[in-house]
Amino acid sequence: MSSTFGKILRLSVFGQSHSAGIGFSLDGFPAGFPVDMEALSAFMSRRAPGKNEYSTPRREKDIPEFISGIVDGVTCGAPIAAVIFNSDVKKNDYANLKSVPRPGHADFTAEIKYGGYQDKTGGGHFSGRLTAPICAAGALCIQLLKSRGIEVAAHIKAIHGVCDAPMSPENILSARDKPFPVISDEAGEDMRREIADAKSRGDSVGGIIECAVLGLPPGVGDPMFDGMENRIAGAAFAVPAIKGIEFGAGFGAASMYGTENNDPFYCDGTDVRTSTNNSGGILGGITTGMPLVFSCAVKPTPSVATPQKSVDMVSGQNCNLEIHGRHDPCIVPRAVPCIEAAAALAVTDALIECGIIAKGSI
Amino acid sequence: MSSTFGKILRLSVFGQSHSAGIGFSLDGFPAGFPVDMEALSAFMSRRAPGKNEYSTPRREKDIPEFISGIVDGVTCGAPIAAVIFNSDVKKNDYANLKSVPRPGHADFTAEIKYGGYQDKTGGGHFSGRLTAPICAAGALCIQLLKSRGIEVAAHIKAIHGVCDAPMSPENILSARDKPFPVISDEAGEDMRREIADAKSRGDSVGGIIECAVLGLPPGVGDPMFDGMENRIAGAAFAVPAIKGIEFGAGFGAASMYGTENNDPFYCDGTDVRTSTNNSGGILGGITTGMPLVFSCAVKPTPSVATPQKSVDMVSGQNCNLEIHGRHDPCIVPRAVPCIEAAAALAVTDALIECGIIAKGSI
Amino acid sequence: MSSTFGKILRLSVFGQSHSAGIGFSLDGFPAGFPVDMEALSAFMSRRAPGKNEYSTPRREKDIPEFISGIVDGVTCGAPIAAVIFNSDVKKNDYANLKSVPRPGHADFTAEIKYGGYQDKTGGGHFSGRLTAPICAAGALCIQLLKSRGIEVAAHIKAIHGVCDAPMSPENILSARDKPFPVISDEAGEDMRREIADAKSRGDSVGGIIECAVLGLPPGVGDPMFDGMENRIAGAAFAVPAIKGIEFGAGFGAASMYGTENNDPFYCDGTDVRTSTNNSGGILGGITTGMPLVFSCAVKPTPSVATPQKSVDMVSGQNCNLEIHGRHDPCIVPRAVPCIEAAAALAVTDALIECGIIAKGSI
Amino acid sequence: MSSTFGKILRLSVFGQSHSAGIGFSLDGFPAGFPVDMEALSAFMSRRAPGKNEYSTPRREKDIPEFISGIVDGVTCGAPIAAVIFNSDVKKNDYANLKSVPRPGHADFTAEIKYGGYQDKTGGGHFSGRLTAPICAAGALCIQLLKSRGIEVAAHIKAIHGVCDAPMSPENILSARDKPFPVISDEAGEDMRREIADAKSRGDSVGGIIECAVLGLPPGVGDPMFDGMENRIAGAAFAVPAIKGIEFGAGFGAASMYGTENNDPFYCDGTDVRTSTNNSGGILGGITTGMPLVFSCAVKPTPSVATPQKSVDMVSGQNCNLEIHGRHDPCIVPRAVPCIEAAAALAVTDALIECGIIAKGSI
Repeated sequence: MSSTFGKILRLSVFGQSHSAGIGFSLDGFPAGFPVDMEALSAFMSRRAPGKNEYSTPRREKDIPEFISGIVDGVTCGAPIAAVIFNSDVKKNDYANLKSVPRPGHADFTAEIKYGGYQDKTGGGHFSGRLTAPICAAGALCIQLLKSRGIEVAAHIKAIHGVCDAPMSPENILSARDKPFPVISDEAGEDMRREIADAKSRGDSVGGIIECAVLGLPPGVGDPMFDGMENRIAGAAFAVPAIKGIEFGAGFGAASMYGTENNDPFYCDGTDVRTSTNNSGGILGGITTGMPLVFSCAVKPTPSVATPQKSVDMVSGQNCNLEIHGRHDPCIVPRAVPCIEAAAALAVTDALIECGIIAKGSI
Repeated sequence: MSSTFGKILRLSVFGQSHSAGIGFSLDGFPAGFPVDMEALSAFMSRRAPGKNEYSTPRREKDIPEFISGIVDGVTCGAPIAAVIFNSDVKKNDYANLKSVPRPGHADFTAEIKYGGYQDKTGGGHFSGRLTAPICAAGALCIQLLKSRGIEVAAHIKAIHGVCDAPMSPENILSARDKPFPVISDEAGEDMRREIADAKSRGDSVGGIIECAVLGLPPGVGDPMFDGMENRIAGAAFAVPAIKGIEFGAGFGAASMYGTENNDPFYCDGTDVRTSTNNSGGILGGITTGMPLVFSCAVKPTPSVATPQKSVDMVSGQNCNLEIHGRHDPCIVPRAVPCIEAAAALAVTDALIECGIIAKGSI
Repeated sequence: MSSTFGKILRLSVFGQSHSAGIGFSLDGFPAGFPVDMEALSAFMSRRAPGKNEYSTPRREKDIPEFISGIVDGVTCGAPIAAVIFNSDVKKNDYANLKSVPRPGHADFTAEIKYGGYQDKTGGGHFSGRLTAPICAAGALCIQLLKSRGIEVAAHIKAIHGVCDAPMSPENILSARDKPFPVISDEAGEDMRREIADAKSRGDSVGGIIECAVLGLPPGVGDPMFDGMENRIAGAAFAVPAIKGIEFGAGFGAASMYGTENNDPFYCDGTDVRTSTNNSGGILGGITTGMPLVFSCAVKPTPSVATPQKSVDMVSGQNCNLEIHGRHDPCIVPRAVPCIEAAAALAVTDALIECGIIAKGSI
Repeated sequence: MSSTFGKILRLSVFGQSHSAGIGFSLDGFPAGFPVDMEALSAFMSRRAPGKNEYSTPRREKDIPEFISGIVDGVTCGAPIAAVIFNSDVKKNDYANLKSVPRPGHADFTAEIKYGGYQDKTGGGHFSGRLTAPICAAGALCIQLLKSRGIEVAAHIKAIHGVCDAPMSPENILSARDKPFPVISDEAGEDMRREIADAKSRGDSVGGIIECAVLGLPPGVGDPMFDGMENRIAGAAFAVPAIKGIEFGAGFGAASMYGTENNDPFYCDGTDVRTSTNNSGGILGGITTGMPLVFSCAVKPTPSVATPQKSVDMVSGQNCNLEIHGRHDPCIVPRAVPCIEAAAALAVTDALIECGIIAKGSI
């Protein structure tokens, strides 16, 4: 099931960085939903490469061609499949990587697992490019959620230690929709300087993405192994470079007293709400009705121009490695929609499973 | 699947805090493995309540009675099922909680999800007590892994901001086996003071648990949704109070340069190793052969003696809540073996799936 | 997942014929359902051994002790677990079988798969006794279905070539509730003679069980791999001795013209119905609203008193085998409730998945 | 999971009869296997329409375009995805079917399930055309199995009551490879007359397909819900028109004595074999090492030229329906490779799960 996610809403992802195409099949999406293809393209373009100075100059239009599941613009209940054909492929860039694994990449582990038969060009199936189908499938979920009053929005919480202003349900939507999705544009400027600085030094930087799902009713998710934390983590760790996830106060809660961390309940008309949201909107794996909030740690892009130490797996000797080709000095901005997509997939699956979104037809 | 974990090695957990018993069924464990019941009991006793001043005085022997799957002390290939019968149950302690949800607990979300039919005594199915069957099943995996030269060991990395000394493959095994599992006993003393202090104030504290899996071969795990991160997170978030997880440098990587965070490869005889381990032994979801290292954030025990604000769900009014009964001021020490167990379950499942541990019989 | 069934409603079965007990955990059953323990016992007694002259004299009360999931007689949303403790165990009967596999049994295949570590007494995990937990879990589903106006009923369609009268929605319920569940008592007499005759000759006979699910709405089930046929077959083949399954006209359809086999639609008020039901109430994997009807072939009990040819797996020599112990000359009557239970589990899972039965609470 | 099959080897199928294309993603196929594209095409052509007088004149080349998972002709461990673009689509043929469900088709149940949003042209996702991707994926498995000495072969056992000669491991391979796959060409002639006769009368006929998997080692498969019967049935019922399945003697066993039906074991050198094979090579869900044999009942093609009774779902009135368009008077011949493909998928998944075929790379 390595490329399959979800219980009722099943995503299956395929493709390699330099295969004929990459794509997905999404099984279990309700029939009768009109897909907004423009909104989908707009969402995809947030992830697309080649947009600005800190992203790879590889240019892919990244327009999914829908093969099935949509009739006259409306979902029909059959699996929704799409292919993004790869166009701008430069195989030569990767020639020298074939026997020398890049530090921080999956080259070495793929070599061991697939016995040398893995697709070695451009990271193969491990490439960040595989997040494009995740985004396309997630975009469908985001539209469906939006039609139910549920918004998924993420921002760049930090890059290389430079932090954004605190997120709130009020400021997150407008931050999401910026070209550089931050709450504080000043912080955004500082972050970009960090990225430009790293790039100029042949290096890369990481960061943190914070994501909120607003408008979720309480009661979604399940105890133990099917909690919202388990589900979202299960999707988010599919995005390469994600090395940590925390919900609500997360690791911060480890330094708090119970009386600080506990979110007091209060009555808001007939609703029950909490005056703080350290739980990130999840108690016992189940949504509280408060914003579902989580953050993901994104490691620095492993492909850096600076020469690195590695080994030649053919000769069994230590060696130096210089990586050429096209690489983002910071993938955090492009990973923002990927995290939204991952969250949307997990949340939609849970909503269908608990019957709040009907299975079959809307 | 809320109480079910694993792909080939399937764990199914059942029970409530105050039901007749709690237990598990573990399907897919190889036949022919001699179970060391003493070692299993010793492992269980690390989680058991009532041992010392910072844990609940509820006393349960927590001895699993094996119902099936083991013949004359040796696994037979059939599902291994065990029940821990609940004995020391005081239902009255929870009477006043029935309509007033405890902040930080699943009382409110369970009420919404199960329409008031959930077992309200002692947290029901959401109780930390349900980690006992996870530990028992995990203990079987830990023994199996040990027989293959793989050790699972965790320590208390921090409590309420007081940090343990850095972990290494050399010091983690002895730390694990201490009554208070820390590397630096001095730090341990400070931690205990934090706990005692919180307790004296009717409060609680959280912390961080760091876990290592030593001796894993490279090549275990799968890309995308079945990476070791996804698998371990899927198990670890089943432990109540876990609100974050990070692998290797984790959130720290977000502040690093690529050249710092990348782990350089080098040849160690015929093995390939990395000189640092910021990846936590996982690249592309697949093990590198270096120690698999991750940390979990544990929130402070939500049950505190200090009165808290909540709501009465029957009257729909705000109210104050005083929690009586028996509660740990810090569950971190008892959660240490739970995290080891969760890791062992996920790792063993992955090892069976990739054929390194045979399915069927050992 | 060998002992696990279902997508949303997950059954996990454990135990061996002669282990301390056998049991199940059923995860995903809605909260708030009052369990009728008397009805459950009555259902279990239809499967129980030792009732009459053609069933094994092994006497087990087969009363499940519920460990969790039910509070004050009402389901609470947590997994429902139960154990049936084995009492009447005679291990000696099986001593000579340990190295000589019984023809028609799983002794040989288990030996290969589990490397000799399998529980060899009484068929171990492969024993027909493991249908008791399936029946107990199925009985819960049958009660839930009944509360929604859905009845599950099976009868003995044939034994050793002697056929019952044709089933109809009108006669199946009363047939189900007879001690010997047939429509025609005359045919039942003939069947019993076949069984008695086989028994007197140290032999055994098989038969066919036909099962109907009445009252299902149209629209339940899914296309392709999750059709009602796939789901029910997936459950029914867990009952040992089942070697075939057919839906509606089944194998008979292979000899029909399309114009005969097609079920014409007609309007029955606002409902759409079919004037025949050769489809067995399933088109495209999805229920039509007509009775869901299927039949299962049950092979003759493999344990017969007549000496048989086998091999000694220790010496590697051909040998003769005489089976002693307690064995039904015909398990068809006792398998009737097992098939009902299997159908109920599959149908309830599908109803929960499509939202007709709510997940969470009723 | 309605369009997803398998545990370790996961097939995901997508497409509708008249969507842009149909296809599949197959996740978990080992790396390093050289795909024989000619053999794959040859296999696909056995299912392809338009070949002869009893199959629909719709002409599709049915050549899968591989999108991913194969590099330079060799599998790379990433999901293998392929699309068959639909070319010869005549939407008008289906115009009058939109409100009048065809008897024996899924039109009515799809309407209920998908609320009228389903793709109504050509059967949509329920079309027999969706077996093309199943065949393509199955063809990969068949090649992999063949490389391990395992052959999958099926023949037409009966059409409209006309039976083929009995199958044996010796005659099945050559029968499989005939244009009209029967053992007795004489019986084949009679079958064709039945088909031609039905066609001339505006009618259709069904039949039975028998399939054998030769060369399987003993020990493959699992007890209870993951037996080879459950697995194969789970795949085979995805082929539209399949209404029954039986293993070995199947329904015939219902009329046998135990002493007849039991397969006596004997020593064949160091192997253990059985002198008969009424079990169909499966005991306790696990392979015996004898040929795995099963049969599937195929109902007559529901689309017949003869006018039929149906209902108009818009007006709510009874009506007559005349079906135009292109339809096979008998789909049995074209279903033969589909059943082989379904068996191959289930068997390969089980072989990978039990480690006989390595996961990762070959």
